[in-house]
Amino acid sequence: MKSVKSVIPRDVSDAGAVLMSGREFARGLRAELRADVAALQREHRSPGALLILLVGERQDSILYAQNLVRWFTSIGLECRLQTLPEDAPIQAVQATIVGASHDPAVAGILVQMPLPTHLIYHDVFAAMLPVKDVEGLHPENIGLLASGMPRFVPSTPLAGMALLDANGVALEGKHVAILGRSNVVGKPLAQLMLARNATVTLLHSRSRDITGFVRSADVVAAAAGVTELVTGAMIKPGAIVLDFGINVVDDAIVGDVQFETVRQVASMITPVPGGIGPLTNLMLARNLLTAADLQRGVS
Amino acid sequence: MKSVKSVIPRDVSDAGAVLMSGREFARGLRAELRADVAALQREHRSPGALLILLVGERQDSILYAQNLVRWFTSIGLECRLQTLPEDAPIQAVQATIVGASHDPAVAGILVQMPLPTHLIYHDVFAAMLPVKDVEGLHPENIGLLASGMPRFVPSTPLAGMALLDANGVALEGKHVAILGRSNVVGKPLAQLMLARNATVTLLHSRSRDITGFVRSADVVAAAAGVTELVTGAMIKPGAIVLDFGINVVDDAIVGDVQFETVRQVASMITPVPGGIGPLTNLMLARNLLTAADLQRGVS
Repeated sequence: MKSVKSVIPRDVSDAGAVLMSGREFARGLRAELRADVAALQREHRSPGALLILLVGERQDSILYAQNLVRWFTSIGLECRLQTLPEDAPIQAVQATIVGASHDPAVAGILVQMPLPTHLIYHDVFAAMLPVKDVEGLHPENIGLLASGMPRFVPSTPLAGMALLDANGVALEGKHVAILGRSNVVGKPLAQLMLARNATVTLLHSRSRDITGFVRSADVVAAAAGVTELVTGAMIKPGAIVLDFGINVVDDAIVGDVQFETVRQVASMITPVPGGIGPLTNLMLARNLLTAADLQRGVS
Repeated sequence: MKSVKSVIPRDVSDAGAVLMSGREFARGLRAELRADVAALQREHRSPGALLILLVGERQDSILYAQNLVRWFTSIGLECRLQTLPEDAPIQAVQATIVGASHDPAVAGILVQMPLPTHLIYHDVFAAMLPVKDVEGLHPENIGLLASGMPRFVPSTPLAGMALLDANGVALEGKHVAILGRSNVVGKPLAQLMLARNATVTLLHSRSRDITGFVRSADVVAAAAGVTELVTGAMIKPGAIVLDFGINVVDDAIVGDVQFETVRQVASMITPVPGGIGPLTNLMLARNLLTAADLQRGVS
């Protein structure tokens, strides 16, 4: 993984907590990425395309995928959207992925979630070459991360780590409470934090005394998909709070953190929207460049 | 994975804590395993061999490997020891593993640790077919465990879980403090505990306030390789204590738990020796049978 070069100035909110803004940071990273892509193209070493595989016709998935195509294109990277019907059998999905795995023009493959219920997640990823899994969801990539040799890491936890790094947060020895144990955020985030020598507690819907763990934590990472799960009364004064939530309430995006009360108590906080979200596409694009390097035998 | 059928009677020590004895439990499991192997042989569906690859001439490794060969043979399972010289280049090690991966008579491959320092762990496992990795150390198997679809799990944490199950310990909602984050015990144990809906904190040499975390834990799993790291004064009354330590002190084996003080406070404890240790070979043998099934297309 390429390390993040930009460092953003801190923005102290009027209520005390430093706002870890992703928007501002993303602008710098985007400029760096565009420059890197342009340099590759000048050297005629164009990275391959990102292929997005979309099964079915969910409106939110179509919108997300179309936005991603637009975003990648704006960076100078090729991004193709391939669709399959809602009732596509697993064999057809696997055949598409095998084809893309062996297509030298495709550097990375993204499978749009959620999949129709008849498709088993693991059967889908079993068909993918791990060196094209830019989402970091193939078991081999999950295992490489867990054993301390990360190749591709999901973009959302990477974005959270990049924001901590840009704000100069050291994790060694700190207690991190992670709320949520998904394969795309909570679990990979735990591995990334552990690799930085944090003490990590992974909390979830079956955990008892979530408040007690959150209150003792130096860093709280909320990735449970529950609106305003973390409140100011729950956290330790001076804690650092990462909000991975993206919940739609009355046509607005709100996080898993009750921003107004937490900002009064925390020392640093990521807003929603405008915190971690703006960085995720950038992390995915970096994964795509890494994939292109690996497939060229560079690394 | 085959579920464990034996249930052992509890042995209440005179000092209060129930002793979770592995010796007694292992006898029952061993008899079941021998019967299963004999049944397979009667049906002429003999499972393949375990191949142990030993690089170099460390006396402790040779002894360990020879004991393993003897133990597997006593169960009725074939176990071969293949040795390579201390200075074997990575290419030779990989060629041996590739050969065994494609040898239909070999169902599982175990790489004896530690490897000579010029051999990189990940380069060695990269040569192995994941379906023959009965140690559960190939990235793909680590990732399958982490994503909730375990195929092969390292034998030591499996042995700890089997002992908890045999003693009727429910983990849901309990706080588990794991000391040590190795790829063979701490990390896979965290995944197994998490899959049982425990709240897991992973502690390690860089953690601050280890005592505080241990004191708040319902279950303490010591796998740090530090003699008598956990003492009676550190644990919560009634806690359940798993000792994964195998430390040699004055020619005796002692654990990571100070047994005499902890047994006064804990409700259940695994002794060392005679706790988790006697079960590990049994778990490895079960993994070998699973591997044989997977390679036959059964399962």
